[in-house]
Amino acid sequence: MTPASPFVSDVPAAEAAAAWRAACADAGCPQRVDGVRVPVGDAVGRVTAEPVWARRSSPAFDSAGMDGIAVRAADTVGAAETAPVLLDDFAVVDTGDPLPEGYDAVVMREHVHHTGGRAELRAAVPPYQHVRSIGEDIGATELLLPQGHRLRPVDVAACAAAGAVELRVRRRPVVAVVPTGDEIVPVGTEPATGQILDTNSLMLAAQARELGCAARVHDIVADDPAAITAAVRAAAAEADLVVLVAGSSAGRDDYTARVVAAAGTLAVHGVAVRPGHPVVLGVVDATPVLGAPGYPVSASLTFDIFAAPLLAALEGAAPRERPTTTARMARKLASSIGSDDWVRVRLGHVGGDVVATPLPRGAGVLTSLVRADGLLVVPSGVEGHHAGERVRVELLRGLDEIGRTIVAIGSHDLVLDVAASRLRAADPLVTLASSNVGSLGGLAALRDGLCHVAGSHLLDPATGEYTLPYVDRLFTDDVAVVRLVHRDQGLIVAPGNPLGLTGVDDLVRPGLRYVNRQRGAGTRALLDHELGRRGLDPARVSGYSREEHTHLGVAAAVSAGRADTGMGILAAARAFGLDFVPVAREPYDLVLRASTVDDDLLAPLWDLLQQDGFREHVEALGGYSCAETGRRVR
Amino acid sequence: MTPASPFVSDVPAAEAAAAWRAACADAGCPQRVDGVRVPVGDAVGRVTAEPVWARRSSPAFDSAGMDGIAVRAADTVGAAETAPVLLDDFAVVDTGDPLPEGYDAVVMREHVHHTGGRAELRAAVPPYQHVRSIGEDIGATELLLPQGHRLRPVDVAACAAAGAVELRVRRRPVVAVVPTGDEIVPVGTEPATGQILDTNSLMLAAQARELGCAARVHDIVADDPAAITAAVRAAAAEADLVVLVAGSSAGRDDYTARVVAAAGTLAVHGVAVRPGHPVVLGVVDATPVLGAPGYPVSASLTFDIFAAPLLAALEGAAPRERPTTTARMARKLASSIGSDDWVRVRLGHVGGDVVATPLPRGAGVLTSLVRADGLLVVPSGVEGHHAGERVRVELLRGLDEIGRTIVAIGSHDLVLDVAASRLRAADPLVTLASSNVGSLGGLAALRDGLCHVAGSHLLDPATGEYTLPYVDRLFTDDVAVVRLVHRDQGLIVAPGNPLGLTGVDDLVRPGLRYVNRQRGAGTRALLDHELGRRGLDPARVSGYSREEHTHLGVAAAVSAGRADTGMGILAAARAFGLDFVPVAREPYDLVLRASTVDDDLLAPLWDLLQQDGFREHVEALGGYSCAETGRRVR
Repeated sequence: MTPASPFVSDVPAAEAAAAWRAACADAGCPQRVDGVRVPVGDAVGRVTAEPVWARRSSPAFDSAGMDGIAVRAADTVGAAETAPVLLDDFAVVDTGDPLPEGYDAVVMREHVHHTGGRAELRAAVPPYQHVRSIGEDIGATELLLPQGHRLRPVDVAACAAAGAVELRVRRRPVVAVVPTGDEIVPVGTEPATGQILDTNSLMLAAQARELGCAARVHDIVADDPAAITAAVRAAAAEADLVVLVAGSSAGRDDYTARVVAAAGTLAVHGVAVRPGHPVVLGVVDATPVLGAPGYPVSASLTFDIFAAPLLAALEGAAPRERPTTTARMARKLASSIGSDDWVRVRLGHVGGDVVATPLPRGAGVLTSLVRADGLLVVPSGVEGHHAGERVRVELLRGLDEIGRTIVAIGSHDLVLDVAASRLRAADPLVTLASSNVGSLGGLAALRDGLCHVAGSHLLDPATGEYTLPYVDRLFTDDVAVVRLVHRDQGLIVAPGNPLGLTGVDDLVRPGLRYVNRQRGAGTRALLDHELGRRGLDPARVSGYSREEHTHLGVAAAVSAGRADTGMGILAAARAFGLDFVPVAREPYDLVLRASTVDDDLLAPLWDLLQQDGFREHVEALGGYSCAETGRRVR
Repeated sequence: MTPASPFVSDVPAAEAAAAWRAACADAGCPQRVDGVRVPVGDAVGRVTAEPVWARRSSPAFDSAGMDGIAVRAADTVGAAETAPVLLDDFAVVDTGDPLPEGYDAVVMREHVHHTGGRAELRAAVPPYQHVRSIGEDIGATELLLPQGHRLRPVDVAACAAAGAVELRVRRRPVVAVVPTGDEIVPVGTEPATGQILDTNSLMLAAQARELGCAARVHDIVADDPAAITAAVRAAAAEADLVVLVAGSSAGRDDYTARVVAAAGTLAVHGVAVRPGHPVVLGVVDATPVLGAPGYPVSASLTFDIFAAPLLAALEGAAPRERPTTTARMARKLASSIGSDDWVRVRLGHVGGDVVATPLPRGAGVLTSLVRADGLLVVPSGVEGHHAGERVRVELLRGLDEIGRTIVAIGSHDLVLDVAASRLRAADPLVTLASSNVGSLGGLAALRDGLCHVAGSHLLDPATGEYTLPYVDRLFTDDVAVVRLVHRDQGLIVAPGNPLGLTGVDDLVRPGLRYVNRQRGAGTRALLDHELGRRGLDPARVSGYSREEHTHLGVAAAVSAGRADTGMGILAAARAFGLDFVPVAREPYDLVLRASTVDDDLLAPLWDLLQQDGFREHVEALGGYSCAETGRRVR
């Protein structure tokens, strides 16, 4: 497929990889990187370039397999409990000692009685008892390892025992990462508005190194076809794979496909993979080129899906595999029928089952990969999964670690972050993972068996009570409620409060732009309550239907000037250097099934809530009171 | 527990680890290694020493989420298919561009028709459509990563996006490996009889490096308590963990326990773990000391079981986990009730099931770890497993790779090694794994669904036919038989054939020491046949009941002078530089279920057997004929 079309196609991933391989072969790319000889001790992690045949046997001589005495088996014939045999002719040996000339068996120390220089045996021994034979481990000339084997510590030790001093292994493939884009600036600089830090190069180079490759990050190249062409050619001259970052789509400043088509072969432009769709696969100067999308999740997954197998093939080794597990879908998941959907999921061990909760699916949300415990691939042709369906998940964290993770779903509060951090500091095996879906969403998740605790600060307008009325409505079995903290809610406003807002009454001021929280969020319930008790109609609040999903989202909207105010917590206002008009002090509680209160998993959390250091830390954040922290309110 | 006792105890592994931790704490060992600040790009693989809070939001500004035009949503109200709206006021944007001042939504390029400088829209757009909000990925002040997190490429990219330029991570723990033993010589030297290459240090240092530690191997120390004490103290002064190799048992030259008891605290001497029983756990000069046994499997497993968790704790991170799978036991496995038994297993995907076959269990058989696909831990208190029982196995290879492995069980021949090596060279994803249990054992394994192909050269004395009569007796369903090769069998004799043996008739010569193969081995059946047709009574062959399990084992026995001769193949004689008296030329066949002949898994093997290069390679080995190689004889 040449030249570049202005549109991005949707080639299935396997077909795209095959087309790329074929284009590489046609263009004369080497099938394997060269072999090099390295000392056996330096070969761990490298791939054998030739089979390793044993040059010598190991052990190289017959030796004692136990501490004891070496004897001639024939001398012991007839020895029995009632008829001990006394030997003059024996030799004391330790494990590993060569079997002394003339002896053919070893008797364990514990079975020998020494009496006056003679050894008394009370049992006959067969020839070669407790003798480690020459070649017991490795026989000279046998195949120890095939070529294409990635060497582990035990492998190199065995090779050395078999007489190898050096091994012929593949040299490390070299990956050149070439960042492009007028808006890209190096990590370490302070980006101006509109500029983006070059975090992708950092990540892709690290991914290459994780695979055992050498990686070089080139200087950032401007959005200029001639400059990009020159950079790709220079990189191709010294690398086994060039990764060109960003510019892989079909926008005005997207030159990757055009450059590759003009300078070499464009094999694929666009694959049926989400995220990662606008990928470029091609060859320039007999070097494979991957044009990775600029969205970080796309860049990372694209590297995994297309570059990793190619690099393994260059080493002549099997690609690394992620372990998998089976999990139950926390909720319905829709997927586009036309492409493979790579969904990042959180995993939790709840009620004897591994439960998978999808994380945000945007290609730009790198934290969805950071927070993911697993990857769920919904292949092209599958429309998605039902809630409760069992699915196969590639693991990004160990199952034991996942089993020691407290899964919190619900309203988010900074205090949960503080708790997560302090729990981990005390015990590296404890994780507190929280997902933010609002208070009501958290209670529903708890009811559905998707989490251990739900964070809630849900005000019941009818009773003025927090959380408990909802718990009564949602649950039929026993539920426990533990107070985490009291916190101030208020109006987040621009620095200096330029509009002079004083409280909820001002929200109906004409022209004021409010930003609300999503339905089911406790903060929205609080606003409704405050409006209700003042007799104010929500329809009079301009922006009431505009929804953000987090306190920080509200603060960000105010900070960016997209809104004049929104309700949130003090910590969110501070995060963006904004001001704050207090409205109410509310309790924020942790809800859980009563039957799980005494679970080992949760014990560290209850301990933490009692610690003075934790309480002082929280109150020092501002806007919090720990007077009732840790109290069981139901 | 101080001082050292002359006997080795049997402390359960968990109890031993706890005792070691307690002794380390009492002796003032640091709980964690120090934190150091490193550039974010160098932090991959390291463990966070403090939580990472987001310093800035990402994205840092509102931006276009699509290529298209930025508009004011209010200007598009009322636009419809039948009532297009024409806009003068818009701005062309590409994905990632900052949202230009004054606009609040983006329309995808594909949905815009440009007519005379104006943009025609046929649908209204809501505010903030296709706008990536500031903080969509990361909100300033939120907890990005807790401490105790091992950083991956995506993590460092997210940290950099959140404003981190450096990260505070734990420095790498330093492991000092101190080899001991008068008989130990460095890898790279030519060992004399009785000397052993120091392959353990190579392996243990590599295991430490695999865990992200720095490792230093010290000079080999003689079996002298004062020298060992000095070496341990010097190592302790510069390391976070000292691994003292060998001398951990209670033999005459085993000083580890005594040295540790005298110079510091001996916490444990002997654990209920096999292999690995005679382990020493202690502290010297506020540095943990692991006394590892000298048998290589014991050394490796002991490091995994005791050192790895301690090193993870020093970094404040969760220990690495091996993935697990469920497998069906190929055969009954007995285990000592008093200790955890670490059994190395081969795994094969046979007939839709993962089947686990135990490998040799000796602590000295390092190749049992090299060839293992998994580890099966039979805990103390469990007597073993029945054949067919489902067991949990820790994986040492990926399940996909295991799924692409041709499992051959039966008689071993060097030609299988050559085939394994050439198959891998052609395709890194293909593995041919062969286990040697003799011809009859292989046919039984095939019948029991434990392997794909069985190598057999089993002579039926009644008919003089090879293999087929046995197949008829053992199988009720259709079996295919493919000829691998014809090969010469003969008497393996010392160089120069000093006893002047000419054939099987000489085996009854008085005083001649024969070494036989095990029952069920084809080579033994051949001997029986040759004796039978000469009317010679096996009882007249001295050594007829002495069994070796491989051709190489027979050759090794002759080479070591333990026997004068034994039957085997020419290649085995050559491996040890021995001479060979031909006796018979026999067919060596591959037996498999007829229903599997056309399986994709086996196709590369059948292709290989047709290749001239392969046949030439085999015939060049000597003693082989490929005239019928690849022919289906049934």
